[in-house]
Amino acid sequence: MDFTEKTIKSEKIFDGKIIKVKVDMVELPNGSTSTREIVEHPGAICVIPITETKEVIMVRQFRKPIEAVCLEVPAGKLDEGEDPYQCCIRELEEETGYKAKNVQSLGSIYTTPGFSNEILHIYLATELYEGKLQPDEDEFVETETIPLEKLVDMVMNGEIKDAKSIVAILKASQLLK
Amino acid sequence: MDFTEKTIKSEKIFDGKIIKVKVDMVELPNGSTSTREIVEHPGAICVIPITETKEVIMVRQFRKPIEAVCLEVPAGKLDEGEDPYQCCIRELEEETGYKAKNVQSLGSIYTTPGFSNEILHIYLATELYEGKLQPDEDEFVETETIPLEKLVDMVMNGEIKDAKSIVAILKASQLLK
Repeated sequence: MDFTEKTIKSEKIFDGKIIKVKVDMVELPNGSTSTREIVEHPGAICVIPITETKEVIMVRQFRKPIEAVCLEVPAGKLDEGEDPYQCCIRELEEETGYKAKNVQSLGSIYTTPGFSNEILHIYLATELYEGKLQPDEDEFVETETIPLEKLVDMVMNGEIKDAKSIVAILKASQLLK
Repeated sequence: MDFTEKTIKSEKIFDGKIIKVKVDMVELPNGSTSTREIVEHPGAICVIPITETKEVIMVRQFRKPIEAVCLEVPAGKLDEGEDPYQCCIRELEEETGYKAKNVQSLGSIYTTPGFSNEILHIYLATELYEGKLQPDEDEFVETETIPLEKLVDMVMNGEIKDAKSIVAILKASQLLK
């Protein structure tokens, strides 16, 4: 069965600094119509930096949408036309002050394909060495170093709630065990 | 350090069937101002239904935002005022045709706290028995039964890209091993 939903009409709702919003009228597989509210996002990366003693450099950051400080792996949006790998190298140094001799892909995920096209590229960074801490002007982050094994426990007991961080932690843990 | 971003002004942009969009002007910890583009979402559930032989009932569904069919665990949005557990029971039967004698929480995640408040409650359903398949009118899903162990491989090799499904699969796998 072909599940494709054909776009009949697309209405632009919002063109923001980061996201765009549109409402598509679609034809469903049974011939009837429906609407889809869609948030377009430029894409992002996150990186799990792991030291030789299997500790992870995490960041704490206030997230306005949830009105709370969130413990996460370092992450950032892609600049226009930016290569995800380059974005990873940049964000790692900006947010944690570290560079890495070894950066490998842990795959890409759709954070919420029900209403957004955001794709997030996940990297594992090892063989860390000191670079230059340089957060974005309107970004306030605090780093915290936590053993990978403890992070897995914090994922399992629900203390870590950020989806991309959970994926990065559990994938890295699977890979390194 | 207090990272809280105080709302100075909030502008409503869009009030859709599912999402709402607003732009908040905020005061940053250093006293300067910035804007935050925020997508408000009613919240959702997903459920990983596992048979006695450790096979998982997955669903394939066309996702308009990414213009692709996505392999996912069964999921659905909360109706207004709906309890997540009740939503899980409802969606499980609607999308897979199964009921479960045992439903336990695997925690809650923020799918994308950088721009949305969506919270997603994850459940593990076991001791399945037959109910009544009853998809939503504008929802076209196909079920597929896949061993949990194979799903873990599909997560690790990047075949499964949906964040909530990855979290559900890896958490269930950790728990049941």
